[in-house]
Amino acid sequence: METKILPGSYPMNGGDGEVSYARNSQCQKRAVDDAKKIINEAIADLIDIKNLQKSSNRFLIADLGCAAGPNTFFAVQNIIEAVDNKCKTMQKNDPEPDHQYQTIEYQVFFNDRIDNDFNTLFRSLPCSSSRPYFAVGVPGSFYGRLFPKQSIHFMHSSNTLNWLSRVPDHVGDINSPAWNGNSIFCRGDNKEVAEAYLNQYKKDMEVFLNARAEELVAEGLLALVAVGGRPSGVPLCQINMGKTYEFLGSCLFDMAAEGIISKEKVESLNLPQYYPTASEMEELINKNGRFSIEKMETFPGPGEHFHNVQTWSMIVRAGFEAIVQNHFGNEMVDEFFHRYTKKHAENLSIFYGITKLVQINIILKRKVCSK
Amino acid sequence: METKILPGSYPMNGGDGEVSYARNSQCQKRAVDDAKKIINEAIADLIDIKNLQKSSNRFLIADLGCAAGPNTFFAVQNIIEAVDNKCKTMQKNDPEPDHQYQTIEYQVFFNDRIDNDFNTLFRSLPCSSSRPYFAVGVPGSFYGRLFPKQSIHFMHSSNTLNWLSRVPDHVGDINSPAWNGNSIFCRGDNKEVAEAYLNQYKKDMEVFLNARAEELVAEGLLALVAVGGRPSGVPLCQINMGKTYEFLGSCLFDMAAEGIISKEKVESLNLPQYYPTASEMEELINKNGRFSIEKMETFPGPGEHFHNVQTWSMIVRAGFEAIVQNHFGNEMVDEFFHRYTKKHAENLSIFYGITKLVQINIILKRKVCSK
Repeated sequence: METKILPGSYPMNGGDGEVSYARNSQCQKRAVDDAKKIINEAIADLIDIKNLQKSSNRFLIADLGCAAGPNTFFAVQNIIEAVDNKCKTMQKNDPEPDHQYQTIEYQVFFNDRIDNDFNTLFRSLPCSSSRPYFAVGVPGSFYGRLFPKQSIHFMHSSNTLNWLSRVPDHVGDINSPAWNGNSIFCRGDNKEVAEAYLNQYKKDMEVFLNARAEELVAEGLLALVAVGGRPSGVPLCQINMGKTYEFLGSCLFDMAAEGIISKEKVESLNLPQYYPTASEMEELINKNGRFSIEKMETFPGPGEHFHNVQTWSMIVRAGFEAIVQNHFGNEMVDEFFHRYTKKHAENLSIFYGITKLVQINIILKRKVCSK
Repeated sequence: METKILPGSYPMNGGDGEVSYARNSQCQKRAVDDAKKIINEAIADLIDIKNLQKSSNRFLIADLGCAAGPNTFFAVQNIIEAVDNKCKTMQKNDPEPDHQYQTIEYQVFFNDRIDNDFNTLFRSLPCSSSRPYFAVGVPGSFYGRLFPKQSIHFMHSSNTLNWLSRVPDHVGDINSPAWNGNSIFCRGDNKEVAEAYLNQYKKDMEVFLNARAEELVAEGLLALVAVGGRPSGVPLCQINMGKTYEFLGSCLFDMAAEGIISKEKVESLNLPQYYPTASEMEELINKNGRFSIEKMETFPGPGEHFHNVQTWSMIVRAGFEAIVQNHFGNEMVDEFFHRYTKKHAENLSIFYGITKLVQINIILKRKVCSK
């Protein structure tokens, strides 16, 4: 499956075929489910329905990094049910029992980068008669402005903020102390490389938070959920997800050693992904200053997907095929993922004792005066 | 090029290849250009910038039936330039010269049916740095609600309203007096068939106008431009566009006579298209009652495209391939359009004297109390 990819863009696999993201995102679905509770509580505690009804009676939701579905539909459905529940509770407890609450109209903005497969997303939308919202697609990177000022009430982003906007400076430069030629990811056990990745992460988060602060209404909510995180002090290479990157990298180096792909090409590949600790995120949000952290939770991310070789290798392929194909061309892709699956199977036992990724869920509220 | 099409949906050809709508819509582009003047005047005369700036300072535009571009981008660019010009004029003439007008933020909703090629549309958007608007795609039929109540300031629809939501009742029923077995379109010289088509058109326009009246802000504008129309009293079969349908139909009947496709299949094909007269449109809008007709113009539509066999047959293919393929399957498509091109070439002289389609452009304003 050949796809034309924009420079610096790494879409999830499109379509609804065997190796599509739509059919291989169970792991991400689990994370959406795990974030349900904190989102429900945030909506119950923090959304001001009365204020909303004073203005337009519309509730605008954005899902940032929605891919081609279907997880985005579950996430959005849950947000809408929570807002509806909040309305019902308010109506029940209203001291003026005759006061009629108007029905809220929902509009949902599904966002992803411009080369995301929006056609598949739209064709798999719940049908309009059973869908309690007007659906809209928004093409563009969330590391930049996507919406007019103060136009969105609730923003959600799940399984997305580990993707940086670009590969950090210097990690691809053989003359830099931050050169990361022996690895394709930020292992975390090399200080200069880790710093280069962290710096890029800081820049990206600042741009992300500033854009969202412009776009959200005053006191609008921003739910950043299923962020893959590290436990404090543990480098990524010692965590289940890090092992996946290690195996992907070692398959590439094996193929280079056999002359199938070039060694320089492998050395120059650096995945634009960063896994922060919860306190790194907290610090960046506080330093940015335009949001208050209303709720935050961390817990061990799902680990059982790693135990099923077939499922896990398809999830990995759906997420990383585009970036591999973009870097090495289409010819080596099948062979590469075949090798990766084999390597994962051979090392399966590792995934039973190993430290898991931390799942970080954070609910932010845009400060009224956010400058 | 095989496409899966939803029942009752007839998308323009997707992609950006040789037979794509994106590369074969010069005729529709000309109509967009022809409508520029009336749109500019409408914005200069009728948009209330002061009122806008009192509320949100956003200006939301929808283009209904945008296809996969690029004409929609020209139309939208023109609308934005006209609003910007209006702002500048107001600022210049403001009795309080220190009063600062805020910069308006534009958000553009590109709408088409769910099986439109939104991927191509998004990938051909002007790049975000040179684009003065936030872009959004809206999948769904405009014969129904697409947006929350009172959320759009300006709606535009060009080259679209000749498409009915469905094939009219009875024209496919061999036992009905409105059976249209000998033709694939509403020729206009059979009273029962013409009535069946007109009835469907009336129903569709009523649904269309009611939906738009809900979605537009009070006094919001609805520009219905490049509607293909008939001069009063002239049936479609006597007009250049009608000849195109006649030739399409006769190629199908030829292929049926040669046993390539089934005659019953040809008899059961009815293009869901209606070409109203200007006064039919006027009457429907007045009867609906939720809009005032602010400006209206008719003039002979472009005729020169019909004189270039290659250009015209590609325009026809880009617009009608989906519906033909959907009805007869993929095998006959190339042969069919080859025959059509030949037939058009053989009859080219007809297009020099013949009556042209009328281009109808109408600017409507949503009444403040639109119920």
